[in-house]
Amino acid sequence: MPLTGADVAKHNSKASLWMIIHGKVYDLTEFAPSHPGGERILLKYAGKDATEEYDPIHPPGTIDEALAPEKHLGEVDLATLSAEQQVVETVKPRLAEGEAPPSLDMCLNLDDIERAAEKLLKPKAWAYYRSAADDEKTFNWNRDSFFSVRLRPRVLRDVTDVDLTTTLLGHRSSLPIYVAPAAMGRLAHPEGEKCLARVAASQGFPYMISANASVSYEEIAQQAKSGQTLFYQLYVNRDRKKSEAILEKVAKLGYKAICVTVDAPVAGKRERDERAKLDEEAAEDPNMRKAVASTGPNAPDAPQDEPSQGIAQALGSYVDPTLSWDDLSWVRRASGGLPIIVKGIQRAEDAALAAHYGANAIILSNHGGRQCEGAPSSLETLLEIRKFEPRVLDKVEVWCDGGFRRGTDVLKALALGAKAVGIGRPFMYSLAFGDAGVQKVATILRDELAQNTRLLGATSLEEVVPAMVNARALENAIYDGPYESPIKSVLAKL
Amino acid sequence: MPLTGADVAKHNSKASLWMIIHGKVYDLTEFAPSHPGGERILLKYAGKDATEEYDPIHPPGTIDEALAPEKHLGEVDLATLSAEQQVVETVKPRLAEGEAPPSLDMCLNLDDIERAAEKLLKPKAWAYYRSAADDEKTFNWNRDSFFSVRLRPRVLRDVTDVDLTTTLLGHRSSLPIYVAPAAMGRLAHPEGEKCLARVAASQGFPYMISANASVSYEEIAQQAKSGQTLFYQLYVNRDRKKSEAILEKVAKLGYKAICVTVDAPVAGKRERDERAKLDEEAAEDPNMRKAVASTGPNAPDAPQDEPSQGIAQALGSYVDPTLSWDDLSWVRRASGGLPIIVKGIQRAEDAALAAHYGANAIILSNHGGRQCEGAPSSLETLLEIRKFEPRVLDKVEVWCDGGFRRGTDVLKALALGAKAVGIGRPFMYSLAFGDAGVQKVATILRDELAQNTRLLGATSLEEVVPAMVNARALENAIYDGPYESPIKSVLAKL
Amino acid sequence: MPLTGADVAKHNSKASLWMIIHGKVYDLTEFAPSHPGGERILLKYAGKDATEEYDPIHPPGTIDEALAPEKHLGEVDLATLSAEQQVVETVKPRLAEGEAPPSLDMCLNLDDIERAAEKLLKPKAWAYYRSAADDEKTFNWNRDSFFSVRLRPRVLRDVTDVDLTTTLLGHRSSLPIYVAPAAMGRLAHPEGEKCLARVAASQGFPYMISANASVSYEEIAQQAKSGQTLFYQLYVNRDRKKSEAILEKVAKLGYKAICVTVDAPVAGKRERDERAKLDEEAAEDPNMRKAVASTGPNAPDAPQDEPSQGIAQALGSYVDPTLSWDDLSWVRRASGGLPIIVKGIQRAEDAALAAHYGANAIILSNHGGRQCEGAPSSLETLLEIRKFEPRVLDKVEVWCDGGFRRGTDVLKALALGAKAVGIGRPFMYSLAFGDAGVQKVATILRDELAQNTRLLGATSLEEVVPAMVNARALENAIYDGPYESPIKSVLAKL
Amino acid sequence: MPLTGADVAKHNSKASLWMIIHGKVYDLTEFAPSHPGGERILLKYAGKDATEEYDPIHPPGTIDEALAPEKHLGEVDLATLSAEQQVVETVKPRLAEGEAPPSLDMCLNLDDIERAAEKLLKPKAWAYYRSAADDEKTFNWNRDSFFSVRLRPRVLRDVTDVDLTTTLLGHRSSLPIYVAPAAMGRLAHPEGEKCLARVAASQGFPYMISANASVSYEEIAQQAKSGQTLFYQLYVNRDRKKSEAILEKVAKLGYKAICVTVDAPVAGKRERDERAKLDEEAAEDPNMRKAVASTGPNAPDAPQDEPSQGIAQALGSYVDPTLSWDDLSWVRRASGGLPIIVKGIQRAEDAALAAHYGANAIILSNHGGRQCEGAPSSLETLLEIRKFEPRVLDKVEVWCDGGFRRGTDVLKALALGAKAVGIGRPFMYSLAFGDAGVQKVATILRDELAQNTRLLGATSLEEVVPAMVNARALENAIYDGPYESPIKSVLAKL
Repeated sequence: MPLTGADVAKHNSKASLWMIIHGKVYDLTEFAPSHPGGERILLKYAGKDATEEYDPIHPPGTIDEALAPEKHLGEVDLATLSAEQQVVETVKPRLAEGEAPPSLDMCLNLDDIERAAEKLLKPKAWAYYRSAADDEKTFNWNRDSFFSVRLRPRVLRDVTDVDLTTTLLGHRSSLPIYVAPAAMGRLAHPEGEKCLARVAASQGFPYMISANASVSYEEIAQQAKSGQTLFYQLYVNRDRKKSEAILEKVAKLGYKAICVTVDAPVAGKRERDERAKLDEEAAEDPNMRKAVASTGPNAPDAPQDEPSQGIAQALGSYVDPTLSWDDLSWVRRASGGLPIIVKGIQRAEDAALAAHYGANAIILSNHGGRQCEGAPSSLETLLEIRKFEPRVLDKVEVWCDGGFRRGTDVLKALALGAKAVGIGRPFMYSLAFGDAGVQKVATILRDELAQNTRLLGATSLEEVVPAMVNARALENAIYDGPYESPIKSVLAKL
Repeated sequence: MPLTGADVAKHNSKASLWMIIHGKVYDLTEFAPSHPGGERILLKYAGKDATEEYDPIHPPGTIDEALAPEKHLGEVDLATLSAEQQVVETVKPRLAEGEAPPSLDMCLNLDDIERAAEKLLKPKAWAYYRSAADDEKTFNWNRDSFFSVRLRPRVLRDVTDVDLTTTLLGHRSSLPIYVAPAAMGRLAHPEGEKCLARVAASQGFPYMISANASVSYEEIAQQAKSGQTLFYQLYVNRDRKKSEAILEKVAKLGYKAICVTVDAPVAGKRERDERAKLDEEAAEDPNMRKAVASTGPNAPDAPQDEPSQGIAQALGSYVDPTLSWDDLSWVRRASGGLPIIVKGIQRAEDAALAAHYGANAIILSNHGGRQCEGAPSSLETLLEIRKFEPRVLDKVEVWCDGGFRRGTDVLKALALGAKAVGIGRPFMYSLAFGDAGVQKVATILRDELAQNTRLLGATSLEEVVPAMVNARALENAIYDGPYESPIKSVLAKL
Repeated sequence: MPLTGADVAKHNSKASLWMIIHGKVYDLTEFAPSHPGGERILLKYAGKDATEEYDPIHPPGTIDEALAPEKHLGEVDLATLSAEQQVVETVKPRLAEGEAPPSLDMCLNLDDIERAAEKLLKPKAWAYYRSAADDEKTFNWNRDSFFSVRLRPRVLRDVTDVDLTTTLLGHRSSLPIYVAPAAMGRLAHPEGEKCLARVAASQGFPYMISANASVSYEEIAQQAKSGQTLFYQLYVNRDRKKSEAILEKVAKLGYKAICVTVDAPVAGKRERDERAKLDEEAAEDPNMRKAVASTGPNAPDAPQDEPSQGIAQALGSYVDPTLSWDDLSWVRRASGGLPIIVKGIQRAEDAALAAHYGANAIILSNHGGRQCEGAPSSLETLLEIRKFEPRVLDKVEVWCDGGFRRGTDVLKALALGAKAVGIGRPFMYSLAFGDAGVQKVATILRDELAQNTRLLGATSLEEVVPAMVNARALENAIYDGPYESPIKSVLAKL
Repeated sequence: MPLTGADVAKHNSKASLWMIIHGKVYDLTEFAPSHPGGERILLKYAGKDATEEYDPIHPPGTIDEALAPEKHLGEVDLATLSAEQQVVETVKPRLAEGEAPPSLDMCLNLDDIERAAEKLLKPKAWAYYRSAADDEKTFNWNRDSFFSVRLRPRVLRDVTDVDLTTTLLGHRSSLPIYVAPAAMGRLAHPEGEKCLARVAASQGFPYMISANASVSYEEIAQQAKSGQTLFYQLYVNRDRKKSEAILEKVAKLGYKAICVTVDAPVAGKRERDERAKLDEEAAEDPNMRKAVASTGPNAPDAPQDEPSQGIAQALGSYVDPTLSWDDLSWVRRASGGLPIIVKGIQRAEDAALAAHYGANAIILSNHGGRQCEGAPSSLETLLEIRKFEPRVLDKVEVWCDGGFRRGTDVLKALALGAKAVGIGRPFMYSLAFGDAGVQKVATILRDELAQNTRLLGATSLEEVVPAMVNARALENAIYDGPYESPIKSVLAKL
């Protein structure tokens, strides 16, 4: 006989903490303190049905794997739940009253899709995807840095046929782009990352799944098209065994390379994300917003509450901050020898070190402006590498991400030596429209790339060379030293 | 006996597609798939009277020439048309209720005329003239680049008399300007390009007719004043014979030179133009705007519709993308030896190549920011030529266009070595006022040129030399290499 | 017996043009075509009382001197004027209904006074003072250029006493400023330029009267305080005899130097000023604003009306555009040997030429951004002189004007070598408050200068040296050649 | 028997000026002319209860110390005061009607706290804290200058543990920050500076008390935690004996160093502060705002009123403008040999001089943009020192202040050589929330510093070296000479 709502409702505290998910009851009392997303959120749902909150941010099976079988308390009769137990998210609608929802047909470019997503997504989802560190200056600069680079189109070349194909780590791609890893696709669409992987397959470019995807990498691999190129993005776990287990499985499932993210030993301060969480809490507890102007002299040593966390903080809590260069070989071994992509290179020295330590590709990235406010755009890091460590471009594949929204943005990076470009947020935004949205992003990029390659007077990506761009305005501000070769000091230590 | 509305109405599909234009019925069933503007627009008007849509964007006689005589089905009795057959364009008025239309008398400068045109023109016409590529950053930069160049006025020179005349390819001009080629003048005024040609004649500067003019080059030649300088802008057709036929006629009609546009092997992405089209379609089909958030997993491989095209896409469909340097001599031969102007040079290498391949003049142009987003302004290309290929300035005439709105803009280009400047959009906007508007643009430019030449302490255009400007801020960002002489590699191939 | 309104009303055309001013009737029939302000404005007032329009823009006695005695037709009985003859200016009020007029007490800086003046002055007066050439970019740049220069304050100096006095051409001044010449003071206040001269006397700095002052230089000289330093600004008349007559009188009246304005051989295009005039005309003739979209093919050669003129155009019509360097010695001779100030130097070459031709002081000026749009700010010209012609600073006094609003602005120019700074518009705006306003401007500048000289760690203007400023950002954009010494070519001609 | 309201009310003029403060009556007739805040404000409260105005801007006991005992006239029966005698500040509320006051819980960063303070503080308090010199361009530039410097994060370093401690003049600090001296804490909170000192103690970083604190340095010392580091900021008094008396007491009370402020020999022009005062006066005297457009010719020599003073002007009136380098040794002697910090260095020459004259630390500061408009940001001065006087960084500790709002701002200064950073306004704003607010500011900075140090790949502040930043954009505009070593000229004088 199933449990009743009343049975569950009593276990609503730290002392005994039960929760309903998809009609099943779980005892989380022991697990709660080690919940990666913090204990507070569990207490909020203690004794209640947490399905709606749980679902979009956990891959299926997460709770079943995390809890020992004896904590699975069986089914509950959903008809017996009290109104209070049936938690419904309070969502501030983005559409004005009577406003028609935006249509994919009216979207001509990636910014249109972003604006549509802002209207269509739940505020929390929008805040998570869109948020960036601190004052979002790096986020904005990522975008703005493209215009300071001019193109130098050449004319009167036969551009009837244009070949946009390339290879990434030897795997053919129909375009010089790949789906950059971004978490929590199911916040936007029930099929989440599955849509991304399906469209990447049909379009013929690689899909790199996020370590924090809301669909498991197993599912993605299972639905993969034959020959589809999948990469796996790893955040190394404080418990290295867990990472090793993942890497072994990933390799067996046919993933073609491991991407180690190195710019996030701790999560950045994403205030938009945190604010969305605070707004949600304040909506539930009106007292929270009231001024505390009268706080007196006895307050200073009062203990601080656990700070309110956005999704990013919650997700990043298991990441190992001890990760260092020597660990790259451990990753390779654990994956059975898969190629390594190092994501998050932000200075020429580290590009050289990555090459030295055997990386097969590096991604110049500031994590979409989500980590260190003040970091250079990927174009700047690319120019810095050209200036101080030009040989890196011959040794490893250099990929870029961050702020790419136009075909010309991609062409500028390619001209300066990048092999491919990762597209992150636009694909996440497009999930508001499901597969059709993702397809549209790919199509827009393909069309813009084809059109502008022709307008540059080129017929293949090999012809998109440094002389195709004027980056002097940006070069004028590139780091000018002191510069010390990092390899020397590495060798010196041996 | 004429046909009736009912007779025509039945032929409203791909299977049988009739259309009424100027009271005559045409059978477009076979022609439709090859219509340069796409099939969709024809289906929209199938079985109906398309005169209002057809008229401003096709030179008279277009349909008669395009269709074999047996497709001319005779007259229709217009009185018998159903309401649905009488298509009336739905135009969102730009004037607020009760707002007086702008007056030419109140226009003091070219921007005033632009603002007036925005109010007076049909949205579709405005969108076509005003649109530019992608985010319109190049469009804006064209305009902004002028202010970063300072003038260096000299004083205490006798400037009583100032001579603004010059020659273009040996033809005398009263001003260092010409009417730049721009399509579809009849979108703005029933007389369209005729107004432009008439005022150019009365003012004494050259008129360069667009290949896509909505008045035929024959008509323009017929109404030309004796001694008027006319140039013909060519887009080379995929069917070279068609271009040869045009060139032969153009030469016979007295056109003085052929301008080959080289920056548009494919059309740029002009979203304002495309959006105007989408808005029109959405106004007709309210379902189009509705969100498609529910599109599921089966969608990704669904065929894409023919994309909605703006006017630019439609117009450019016949352009030959194989055109290359060697074809310049073919153009010259086909025109019986007329001088060649190469329009759309955007880098120093191509300026040198144009001179090498025998061009008589080159136009530094990014097509008004309508083609490759990120291209340099004409001032930048001019400075690049001064830096890398200064001898080009001695070999060919260098003209500029793009964003010129003030007399001082023109003087800055002349000081840096340009021989003349093309004025495009302002003349198109001024068509909202017919000949009087075009006249006003010419008069404003003449007055500003005379005034500022005097304020520079010059009395003729020969005195407007490099030392008259301080372009250092712009020079600081000019391309700085790698630079390889293109002539060397051309010679090497021989 | 006086004339009646009816007598005068009949003479309201070119054929016979009478006008009433201050109760007297004048026959302007013959004079009209040569009226410096154009004939149109006279026709507007033909047969009517023009006192209100005439008064603020003509020094007393202008009409009596301009017309032969027989054109003075005697008095009119003002009681007999018809309503239509009593022209009252239609002024759009700047204050919102119920808004209190701004108070001088609330003005803390020169911008406050400008904002107050915009509210208090008649629109036409505001438009005349405030207007600048074309898009007012040079006007704005004049102001903005100051912030790009940083100060380098030094500390721990005894700054108890600070001496702000200097000399201009040997005449002691209590501050390193002078009242720059600006026309038409009586547009703002019935006492007009008298207020300026009085306050300059009481404050102890020079007053330079405009050639187009609305109070005559005789009156100014008559009311001058003993020892007051007055300079006279000359626009050389096409009729040189007239200028010679003025110079002779000016010298006798005790003016200390002649300022020759060289940047205005023709007036700049001041659209704000022109627009104010058009607005006035349109208010009177509603048809003027109506759109002329239907203007047909027969229009192009139609004669253009006399263009509507702002005050600037009207005032400048007598200026001699043939003026050249050799004429400086003529000015000196005609003034009996007074020192010569050349106003409007905008490039280093001309600074050198002015020194060569014997100028005693030069004013780096772009006429407040009212003449050549695109001209350098006075700080830029100063830096250009430091770069190419540094010896000029030893040979002549260098003064600056244009956009100075703060004590620190003045100190930046002084540090870079200027001897004094002209303040124009702020004094004109302050006339809205009469003497008290002018006094306030002087006091604010004095206080800001004293305060910031101390904050710079200086106690006298001699200590305000180049090392007190960091002008590198500006220097980076200073003209970089080609540069040819103008003196060489002058000597070569001899 | 206490005095009555009527007794006091009669003494309401210069002739006899009594005032009530905290229920006691004082005779200020003789004192008034020497009141540091000006006589006008005393006359405003003559015969009335001034407690509310007096309280937040005077440390307790100020009046008792300032007046001889015979001027203490005894108590007044507050019940007998007339309505007019009970002055209540007229405060324009910042919160819209029905708007909830901002909550500290919703503040994620220092800007949030500033915005909250703007809503919560009295207008006069806000104006005093927030105001800056002239047009506040230096104030804004302080903030903006940080973004032009990029960080160069390095990756794959073990950043588990991060040590943010440092020493200031040998005193351990838990963070590389200190509370910068700012006056008038009790304008924001009854406990004022006590809150700041308490939190500094609990957090473990130094507190530098302002010479114009509204809580006395004695009180602060009395409540100090054992081992707490306190610094004293001195404005040298025109009466040096007074300063000597203070320094002796300060040393005895355990203050660890004396900070001599050198950038304020006179107060800057803080218009926001002055305007707040004017607004207050105008609210009381509506006639003050009325326009004086009719002021006639007799006005110019009329005496000017005592100018309205903001708080800054009032506070600074006792500061000695004769202070010079040689006085540093006097300060040291008078304090019994305490270390000297020189605050307000704005050029490399003065940094070298400070080191030469024995300063132990220097603070690169433009006084929060409150003194000399146009002064460099502290980052610029730091770069200038690196360029011209790099050895200064080895000789003295270099601290910075002005515009620091983010952990990354602090890290940029440290990377370029600063030892610590002063936080001023944010702490003052946070007083709106009392201790809890101050605590929050400290916590936010600590969290941001820890997070970004890790993101830079550093684990201690020693690793935050010049190669961690790209300051080239700023370097491109650093002063480029003429530069003369100040030490040479000092030695030459010996």
